[in-house]
Amino acid sequence: MKVLVVNAGSSSLKYQLFDMDTEEVIAKGNAERIGLDGSFLKHKANGVETILKKELPNHAEAIALILETLTDAQIGVIKDIKEIDAIGHRVVHGGEHYTEPCLVNQKVIDDLRGLVDLAPLHAVPNTDGIIGCMQVAPQIPNVTVFDTAFHSTMPDYAYLYGVPMQYYRDYAVRRYGAHGTSHKFVGQKLAEYIGMPFDKCKLVTCHIGNGSSITAINNGKCIDTSMGMTPLEGLIMGTRCGDIDANVIQYLCKKTGYDVNKITQILNKESGLLGITEKSSDMRDICEMYARGEKPAVLALEMLAYRIRKYIGSYVAALDGVDAICFTAGIGENTPELREMVLTNLNYLGVKFDKDANYSIPRGDDGLITTKDSAIPVYVISTNEELAIARETVDVVLRKFQK
Amino acid sequence: MKVLVVNAGSSSLKYQLFDMDTEEVIAKGNAERIGLDGSFLKHKANGVETILKKELPNHAEAIALILETLTDAQIGVIKDIKEIDAIGHRVVHGGEHYTEPCLVNQKVIDDLRGLVDLAPLHAVPNTDGIIGCMQVAPQIPNVTVFDTAFHSTMPDYAYLYGVPMQYYRDYAVRRYGAHGTSHKFVGQKLAEYIGMPFDKCKLVTCHIGNGSSITAINNGKCIDTSMGMTPLEGLIMGTRCGDIDANVIQYLCKKTGYDVNKITQILNKESGLLGITEKSSDMRDICEMYARGEKPAVLALEMLAYRIRKYIGSYVAALDGVDAICFTAGIGENTPELREMVLTNLNYLGVKFDKDANYSIPRGDDGLITTKDSAIPVYVISTNEELAIARETVDVVLRKFQK
Repeated sequence: MKVLVVNAGSSSLKYQLFDMDTEEVIAKGNAERIGLDGSFLKHKANGVETILKKELPNHAEAIALILETLTDAQIGVIKDIKEIDAIGHRVVHGGEHYTEPCLVNQKVIDDLRGLVDLAPLHAVPNTDGIIGCMQVAPQIPNVTVFDTAFHSTMPDYAYLYGVPMQYYRDYAVRRYGAHGTSHKFVGQKLAEYIGMPFDKCKLVTCHIGNGSSITAINNGKCIDTSMGMTPLEGLIMGTRCGDIDANVIQYLCKKTGYDVNKITQILNKESGLLGITEKSSDMRDICEMYARGEKPAVLALEMLAYRIRKYIGSYVAALDGVDAICFTAGIGENTPELREMVLTNLNYLGVKFDKDANYSIPRGDDGLITTKDSAIPVYVISTNEELAIARETVDVVLRKFQK
Repeated sequence: MKVLVVNAGSSSLKYQLFDMDTEEVIAKGNAERIGLDGSFLKHKANGVETILKKELPNHAEAIALILETLTDAQIGVIKDIKEIDAIGHRVVHGGEHYTEPCLVNQKVIDDLRGLVDLAPLHAVPNTDGIIGCMQVAPQIPNVTVFDTAFHSTMPDYAYLYGVPMQYYRDYAVRRYGAHGTSHKFVGQKLAEYIGMPFDKCKLVTCHIGNGSSITAINNGKCIDTSMGMTPLEGLIMGTRCGDIDANVIQYLCKKTGYDVNKITQILNKESGLLGITEKSSDMRDICEMYARGEKPAVLALEMLAYRIRKYIGSYVAALDGVDAICFTAGIGENTPELREMVLTNLNYLGVKFDKDANYSIPRGDDGLITTKDSAIPVYVISTNEELAIARETVDVVLRKFQK
């Protein structure tokens, strides 16, 4: 069984073609600058990268080029697009209704379009990617895998905000979270590593990347997560402020003369690590500055580490205990300095940090970073959202066929 | 030594006169509807309450009436205002500069006026109260006791937000906290109860009232607190939303058509317990509804309790352990239902809740609400911000005289 996984952004469309018998990636790539001048496709298969320059005015044209390339006589990896059994789409926001992956029909498309206000940056391109696939390859079933779905099990007292309830009823203001596919994927791996059934343990999963969130998982179900109605809440991120006093917005409107849209944009695009360091939102740059002892980078790392530590503490309280903790995603997997800052002060939980192990996990590998006698084991786990989406897609398609 | 403690709001001025040799309240009262029609003074001394109706166009007139009443031949408690050695003023916001109580001079007045944007509801009346005292009784020294002062020891990684640093430099955007006088007062009592020096233990103090905040105290110093730049952040409060995704403001502006000022006002004045229950912000009403099993009240209590539990967990992580926890203020002291919800799920810390003790603390009393073998003792402690202000005032005045 072969599954194409699609992650459609506003001007890009990433894809991976999986052979689900082996769970290996047969080909992958990225259509870039869709709708802009100089668009092109970067395609990688059999260890060879190919750049194809072509005008890509929309997502459908990008999908068409990707399918042509996958079946190309020279650089292709399959003979016919019929070999693709399903396309799995990463969809950032499923709202309240979509609590699990589903097969796409017209109602799903309409519903996704209705979520534009909740996910202004993602809902339109996500939908465009799906529609593109339906137009170009109508015979292949499409499956939407929602970033919010894993979080749909949160209890009401965790997902509701202290705002007038009418805003929840009328405008669906509540916590939805994000990175659900990743939290579930690494949570399952973490349970395996500690030898407990996923549905019978308490886990805290820290997905720390350009966007970051921490999730509390009780018996296989999310009970809380740090991202909120949108991906702005929670940890300090690349350019997002994370948790902040809501009065700051009105205050900054008054002080700067900007309107609420401009201030909100600044909190989303010019804040976080970029705002603190005043130089870069990229953790690699920040780690270099940190190594040179530059104060803004030290502060940025300390602030991020401190908030991670506090969220871990708060979720351990929410779970009333924890069996294991893990770090994943770009920063979580590749920034031992940050993990050290977080883990050296959790003695009250019995976390015994293993500094040597922490600094010797090879890139892309998983590993334990606490000592063997640590009361709570902490792991680094490489996430793979595309594989997780491919797996969920297979599940949906198989269920459909079984009916 | 006698100290008058003044708490000036926009249209009211509360006062208590302390005999600091015994720390007893000699007289107390409240000037109400200042600047409005129907203003009056409610005065209580020697067990007798007197209502004095008089036009009080401003805070100075209110102070004048209070001093007249205190020295009145019939209902007065002192012969001459000279007997008042100092006046201590509760000041809500001290900004970054005022990290401890101080003797008032013209610079202090000017500085307080400059803090209007940070404390729009409080800075003006607080200052009016002080100026009133200076006009009516210029011979009595005035001392300002700041609600933010105890929190001034927070490290930068705890008080800074993930916003562009220029907003901190130019507009002082940062966490300041509130209720500092109360957190310090109950923290000191808590240390005494557990038989440890205040400057050598780890405490979490929960001040839960109409406004609420939780503070982490390490070795006598605040290291973090849940209120932020303003009293909006943190826990769900009477009418304040507490923690929320900052994108909600722009989203609600779009959905409702209101501007940022109106939405901010709703988050401050129509949210929290009032917004959730859609009936009342008063915990007594909510507890009655809760006892009748009304769902909105159950939800409101669950949401508040859950957030308190998460903050306790996060601060225990920040402190890397905890020696004791306490509840104080109107709701914290008088709502055993809420304390039960918070404390029955902290087994991972070794908190052993004592249900009988929890429900039998007499109003205004202190008491232990965990069992004797609980790893972490939890107390109910009656706060007394006025006495704390009086004590701080004495300290400042004595230091001044000693110089």
